[in-house]
Amino acid sequence: MSVSAGILLDLFIIFAAAKLAGELFERMRQPAVIGELLAGILIGPHALGLIGHPDTALIAAMGGEKAANDALHTTYEVMAELGAVVLLYFVGLETRASELLRHGGRALAVACLGVLLPFMVGLGYMALQPTSLVNDLFVATAMVATSVGITARVLSDLGALRGREGRIILGAAVFDDILGMMTLAVVVGLVSVGEGVSLWSVPIVAAQAIGFTLFLMIVGTRLSRRYSVHLERLHMRNAPFVVSIGVTLGLAALAGVIGLAAIIGAFLAGMVFAEAREQYELERQAQPVYDFLVPFFFVITGSLVDWHVFLDTQVLGLAAAISLLAIVSKLLGGGLGSLGLPRRSVAIVAVGMVPRGEVGLIIAGIGQTQGALEPGVFPVLVIMSVVTTVLVPPVLKGLIGRSSPPSPPSS
Amino acid sequence: MSVSAGILLDLFIIFAAAKLAGELFERMRQPAVIGELLAGILIGPHALGLIGHPDTALIAAMGGEKAANDALHTTYEVMAELGAVVLLYFVGLETRASELLRHGGRALAVACLGVLLPFMVGLGYMALQPTSLVNDLFVATAMVATSVGITARVLSDLGALRGREGRIILGAAVFDDILGMMTLAVVVGLVSVGEGVSLWSVPIVAAQAIGFTLFLMIVGTRLSRRYSVHLERLHMRNAPFVVSIGVTLGLAALAGVIGLAAIIGAFLAGMVFAEAREQYELERQAQPVYDFLVPFFFVITGSLVDWHVFLDTQVLGLAAAISLLAIVSKLLGGGLGSLGLPRRSVAIVAVGMVPRGEVGLIIAGIGQTQGALEPGVFPVLVIMSVVTTVLVPPVLKGLIGRSSPPSPPSS
Repeated sequence: MSVSAGILLDLFIIFAAAKLAGELFERMRQPAVIGELLAGILIGPHALGLIGHPDTALIAAMGGEKAANDALHTTYEVMAELGAVVLLYFVGLETRASELLRHGGRALAVACLGVLLPFMVGLGYMALQPTSLVNDLFVATAMVATSVGITARVLSDLGALRGREGRIILGAAVFDDILGMMTLAVVVGLVSVGEGVSLWSVPIVAAQAIGFTLFLMIVGTRLSRRYSVHLERLHMRNAPFVVSIGVTLGLAALAGVIGLAAIIGAFLAGMVFAEAREQYELERQAQPVYDFLVPFFFVITGSLVDWHVFLDTQVLGLAAAISLLAIVSKLLGGGLGSLGLPRRSVAIVAVGMVPRGEVGLIIAGIGQTQGALEPGVFPVLVIMSVVTTVLVPPVLKGLIGRSSPPSPPSS
Repeated sequence: MSVSAGILLDLFIIFAAAKLAGELFERMRQPAVIGELLAGILIGPHALGLIGHPDTALIAAMGGEKAANDALHTTYEVMAELGAVVLLYFVGLETRASELLRHGGRALAVACLGVLLPFMVGLGYMALQPTSLVNDLFVATAMVATSVGITARVLSDLGALRGREGRIILGAAVFDDILGMMTLAVVVGLVSVGEGVSLWSVPIVAAQAIGFTLFLMIVGTRLSRRYSVHLERLHMRNAPFVVSIGVTLGLAALAGVIGLAAIIGAFLAGMVFAEAREQYELERQAQPVYDFLVPFFFVITGSLVDWHVFLDTQVLGLAAAISLLAIVSKLLGGGLGSLGLPRRSVAIVAVGMVPRGEVGLIIAGIGQTQGALEPGVFPVLVIMSVVTTVLVPPVLKGLIGRSSPPSPPSS
């Protein structure tokens, strides 16, 4: 039997579990990603153990159980990473600089406060805990993330996405993504500096991370705008899409090699091609790749969580505190940033910025695989991402105060 | 640095090399897959060595160079396998039972003779060599493969795809794919029986392999035709495509677990959904996934070839003999099967069935990773696949005797 037959079976189980759980959660009007994450916890080695155990063929080929385990988990890690890269490419594609101009000032204020407050509150609270600085930085960064997809979906279901609040939220989300990625770039850069993280290395790493981001944002976008029309001259099939995927892999690898997170490169690649998105139907073509690969990220991330921690009162206590702080700090950020608008609009914008969703999960996953998180902190961040995401839809619906139309199938 | 940063860099190099070489070959009016294959030979560990060496982070994480190498190559194998699975799913999608009815008898004759003659000629010639039976069976199976995509592309460029010869070739390709997959199923089944392959195990394995294939072809297609309309009720995005990909992974894994080749399951899954192909635009959605993942198969397969064998006169001699037999036997099969047609049509059909292309490569790759091929035989099959594929387009153009229209960009 082929070495990869067992792994292929694992990949099938992961994919099937993701889609079944996603479907179930969509039917319960909950985000599919949360279903995929919980599916991962359920089928992972800490619970049912349906995946994560090398089969006899792999053990024989690798000459031992430890080597087979390592090979299997490297494969998982790469599949999860590819999923995260595709996901962030997709988020990047939706991040168009030109969209910032509408409601730009208001959106910028919401985004800046919505990044600053959670980061400072998170770092401040974690500084009181007996944990390392890099651990605390990761927690704070995960609290910064905004996953506005959930909000956009709810607003769109209620027909409110094109209203003033919707536009401010979408604009703020663009700035927020950029600021969040810069924060992540700096934090991951600091971690890759190693044990000796001192306050002195912060400005150097920050300059490098921010430089990388700004360079690609400005020069890359300009290059793409000027030269993407030449892609049509290529003979290969679907040239614009293929080139954008190639650039995504390249920038993701580059970001990884210079010590940033690969997903930062992927996000920036998506952003670089955002202006050409509609012309070449990049989003339509990325969709099936997304549907195929992204579930691997969520299920494999979920499988890293040992559900026993949910019985650990210390973990639950920290999760409650972090979740509460994550909600309050984003509410404050969004609320202060939109002061001056009618009270209901302020509330909608503030609540709309709360979900951490998949972006929070990705940052937690990076912290975990980089060994930056202390024991028990990874599940805390998973809980925080899930709680902030699950709470928002009902509250938003209440605020907008209209009943949802019959049943828009899915976006 | 993350363990996967180095692997991500390798994946980028593989993807970029594939697309550059593919573009170059398309411009030279040669099949892109051959460019991708040669790119693999060039960047692989036997030549430039741009890929295939674990970086320090992976070696550190795995605790040694051997373990890191194993982990890296397992990841490669899975990526290549995913590429092959997607490719065969795609081939299966184009294999519609209903298309067989047009020119069915003629096409069946061409296909049967085009499978039987190369297999018998190949097995007979290899029996004269001092090689093992499983090795000889694999060589004969690789000679059976037909990759009619190249022919279809040339005919389509010349506006002759919808003519009588084109339809016979397409119809024969469908039968040919099914018969070829059955042959492969039997051969892989025999190999997985192990060392003790005797003539007695042939009927048992054959019954199992053919049973699996026929069961899915008949029952699966019927189930899909009856129930695929219900897929629209699912809430998940792109439900028909997602379900078809899930079934593909599942049948590929199942085929692998019961000792057949994973791609047989993938091919059958594609075939099961072929009837729903147009209704749900499965092909359009599979296209980007194909463009992303399939190149990994060809480049990684190429990287397994040590170019030094091209200097080995024994290997070259065998390659010349096998290539010649592969061409002559398919020409005979196609020619005899289409006797009675005008002489020019007989010639077009016979030549059109010659290319082994990616299907021959996939069978060679399976033989190699299963350890069934003896040293030096894998490159022989690669050469045979390339030679049969490269020779056909100019000959076909000469036969049809029309100049090609200006420049159809790509299909």
